[in-house]
Amino acid sequence: MVALEFWFEFASTYSYPAAARIQAMADQAGLTVVWQPFLLGPIFQRQGWHDSPFNLYPVQGRYMWRDLERICAALNIPLRRPSVFPRNSVLAARVACAFAAEPWLPDFVRQVFHANFAEDLDITKPDIIQTCLERSGISGHRIIERALAPDNKDALRLQVERAVALGIFGAPSFLAADELFWGNDRLEQAIAWCKVPSLVGIA
Amino acid sequence: MVALEFWFEFASTYSYPAAARIQAMADQAGLTVVWQPFLLGPIFQRQGWHDSPFNLYPVQGRYMWRDLERICAALNIPLRRPSVFPRNSVLAARVACAFAAEPWLPDFVRQVFHANFAEDLDITKPDIIQTCLERSGISGHRIIERALAPDNKDALRLQVERAVALGIFGAPSFLAADELFWGNDRLEQAIAWCKVPSLVGIA
Repeated sequence: MVALEFWFEFASTYSYPAAARIQAMADQAGLTVVWQPFLLGPIFQRQGWHDSPFNLYPVQGRYMWRDLERICAALNIPLRRPSVFPRNSVLAARVACAFAAEPWLPDFVRQVFHANFAEDLDITKPDIIQTCLERSGISGHRIIERALAPDNKDALRLQVERAVALGIFGAPSFLAADELFWGNDRLEQAIAWCKVPSLVGIA
Repeated sequence: MVALEFWFEFASTYSYPAAARIQAMADQAGLTVVWQPFLLGPIFQRQGWHDSPFNLYPVQGRYMWRDLERICAALNIPLRRPSVFPRNSVLAARVACAFAAEPWLPDFVRQVFHANFAEDLDITKPDIIQTCLERSGISGHRIIERALAPDNKDALRLQVERAVALGIFGAPSFLAADELFWGNDRLEQAIAWCKVPSLVGIA
């Protein structure tokens, strides 16, 4: 099956609707989703941003929250604006990185996004991540221990370097037959590109 | 007829495909397009940007040009990357501002975008703007004279202030029943919002 790489960041607002809808869309298109957790923080820092651009540029931020509200309403998924934004997503990303190939991973990813953006739960806390794991049918304690191992911290760092090498600068991003698409609103085009990887077939 | 406000900037890459397709889409939806030229430069400067963010952040810039290539291919409109970007759009915006209500204005707008993004012509030059006017069936000389009058310079400044007051921070932007949409990729939603201005009807 052709693969669609899904590069997501748990703190990223537009990654939330993308994570909610990508699996069903890929299934329908006959594509495999490759779940690629990464961190935007180190990428933003390299271009001089020490906060989310949606906080640095409040007019854009105000627009983004309203846009997200419209998107979530259209998808019929709940949205509660997190009381802290962006939430540090390192712990959640480490779990996702360590267990990226597990069959329960996609459900765990959706649970974390739901906790952050629909329940305003503090996903920096191990017990919240444990709850997300349990909601995905997994007992959390050993999983988190494994995620915190030094080799997995390195693996996540490497993942960020891979994102940079691919030209990724925001989330969500999609890699379809070596072609990069950025933004939840490009998911349809990314799927189309998997099927016909050319400038002509994407209308 | 319900009105869809189209806020565009002649130097803005994503305004080019939006200008190319908005009239036919609005016609089909039974909407009037209100053409609202403005300048992004003064808005960017207020948030500390003294160049296009696509130049300030070259990774984003590289992605944007490829994304634009895909979009133009899908719409079957020509694209030649301008040798100067962003081109100063003040003269073109002054003409559009002075004659915003003229029946030839939409065609002139498309001609200027075509000159800049399909022909790599220098739209800062009066003779190129005159060519764009002539291609729209208008003799250019007196038009440009009128556009350079002090009261029209003030009118364009006022137009920028109106954009700021509306929360506009990028181009193209669409105003549909007081709801703001940003980006060529939001044109469909803006049109849908004109018809059903609610969070439910935009799927």
